Amino acid sequence: MHLPQRVRLVEVGPRDGLQNEAHPVSISDKVKLIEDLTAAGLKHIEAGSFVSPKWVPQMAGSAEVFARLQPQTGVIYSALTPNLKGFEDALQAGVREVAVFASASEAFSKRNINCSISESLERFLPVMAAAHLHGIRVRGYVSCVLGCPYEGKVLPQQVSSVANELIAMGCYEVSLGDTIGIGTPADTRELFNVVAGQIPRGKLAGHFHDTYGQALVNIYASLLEGIAVFDSSVAGLGGCPYAKGASGNVATEDVLYMLGGLGIDTGIDLDPLIAAGQRICTVLERRNGSRVAIARLPV
Amino acid sequence: MHLPQRVRLVEVGPRDGLQNEAHPVSISDKVKLIEDLTAAGLKHIEAGSFVSPKWVPQMAGSAEVFARLQPQTGVIYSALTPNLKGFEDALQAGVREVAVFASASEAFSKRNINCSISESLERFLPVMAAAHLHGIRVRGYVSCVLGCPYEGKVLPQQVSSVANELIAMGCYEVSLGDTIGIGTPADTRELFNVVAGQIPRGKLAGHFHDTYGQALVNIYASLLEGIAVFDSSVAGLGGCPYAKGASGNVATEDVLYMLGGLGIDTGIDLDPLIAAGQRICTVLERRNGSRVAIARLPV
Repeated sequence: MHLPQRVRLVEVGPRDGLQNEAHPVSISDKVKLIEDLTAAGLKHIEAGSFVSPKWVPQMAGSAEVFARLQPQTGVIYSALTPNLKGFEDALQAGVREVAVFASASEAFSKRNINCSISESLERFLPVMAAAHLHGIRVRGYVSCVLGCPYEGKVLPQQVSSVANELIAMGCYEVSLGDTIGIGTPADTRELFNVVAGQIPRGKLAGHFHDTYGQALVNIYASLLEGIAVFDSSVAGLGGCPYAKGASGNVATEDVLYMLGGLGIDTGIDLDPLIAAGQRICTVLERRNGSRVAIARLPV
Repeated sequence: MHLPQRVRLVEVGPRDGLQNEAHPVSISDKVKLIEDLTAAGLKHIEAGSFVSPKWVPQMAGSAEVFARLQPQTGVIYSALTPNLKGFEDALQAGVREVAVFASASEAFSKRNINCSISESLERFLPVMAAAHLHGIRVRGYVSCVLGCPYEGKVLPQQVSSVANELIAMGCYEVSLGDTIGIGTPADTRELFNVVAGQIPRGKLAGHFHDTYGQALVNIYASLLEGIAVFDSSVAGLGGCPYAKGASGNVATEDVLYMLGGLGIDTGIDLDPLIAAGQRICTVLERRNGSRVAIARLPV
């Protein structure tokens, strides 16, 4: 057994999480959440998204969120920017790292962002060029890496090809997402084995959803394959849009608890993290999606 | 990676699960649950407990449950029998396999069954003798194997010692239980490594609780250590008595889903299993504790 000694957690709750919550959240509550997460020791927080508020009303006000954040040394606050317009708005708002989003499944790409995979990658070219010009780092996401709600099985070779294009375009890291949470550890290990044939493991991250309860075991399987960066969402914010009432993003608290037990350093403190998650759950009037939080919080 | 090709799941929902549910369940509903589980392909079902109804009122009527069961060829229906009185009642009811229960933690033993570990083991001697006489198989449980709610850390050597005494007494298998669900995969692997120094892996089982969300990853860790028998509870029946609202037993559906993805044979069908779990959840008026069931069931 050969696990990484250190893991970086990318907190996606304020963006990927809140985007999928129906309950409205004020700018102040978003800023407070991001500050709480920073205080708990998170060093990489996806804080907003620069997209049309017509499509994603929950992310309206991301510019104001960034304007009100007091950046802490050594902490990255990133934003999703699907196109050049979004990138320019993000730059204007002072964002220093952005993310772009492609799918490993043709059917998902067409249904989700209304274009083919190659069209979506082309759309990123001006974003990448502008980012390079302004010294902005770009992280890539690939969705549906272990299956697609529309076309079922997705081959690791297909994931590898899309991930490799993102790296070739200039992404410093690519996060592979099991968007519908259907993968199990053998799939996960095979996927990273195949993708690592083209991309160094140090440039790969895992993004697991807990819809089928498999997120933690897939993270452990990834660790065994030498992957050391994972996306997670405090309190499991963000449900699964493909199964009502089901879990989506894995809860940061649960990942942190496991990593702690494995002796892996993250620089994050569990108790203030649990408090941050419980606070936003109160705002959202929802049940806390972290099992660790439920076990630890006073009833 | 070297995983077992076949795994035996021991379904503990009708006993360990229902025992920890506050809502009353009729004998008919218990029998129906056990029949549904049998139809789904489970081959080993803990169907009741022969204890004083003064202490465990939920288990009153176990004799009637066994009387009404139509035994299926190749299916084991077992019962918990903490003492000779319980064993004799079980024998009278036609039970052909029983289980006894010890703790790896002195403090837990005293608080839970009001005697020391060695006193509890002594109490099993007449049960073992009577079982041997009547050709009844005895399975052993050890609780608190990765931690105790009263004394914290529990050493693997202590678990090994208690497990070994149960085997020496004549138990054909010992199930090691993380009663409070706090273990992580490194602890689990170390535990099985230490215990396997005294007991062949083929005589060991894992019993994991999902209180901290770690059950599936601990099962995967156990598989990597060559363990091939696991206890689980349909729909995650039975909460955690040490953290209100928290999860207890890992859901059989979620374990089965993972094993299926790993290509491990169990002989169990997921769809009828999900239906069996949902039916008993309706009776209990509780939320289904299986993430796979929630993802799969129509909303």
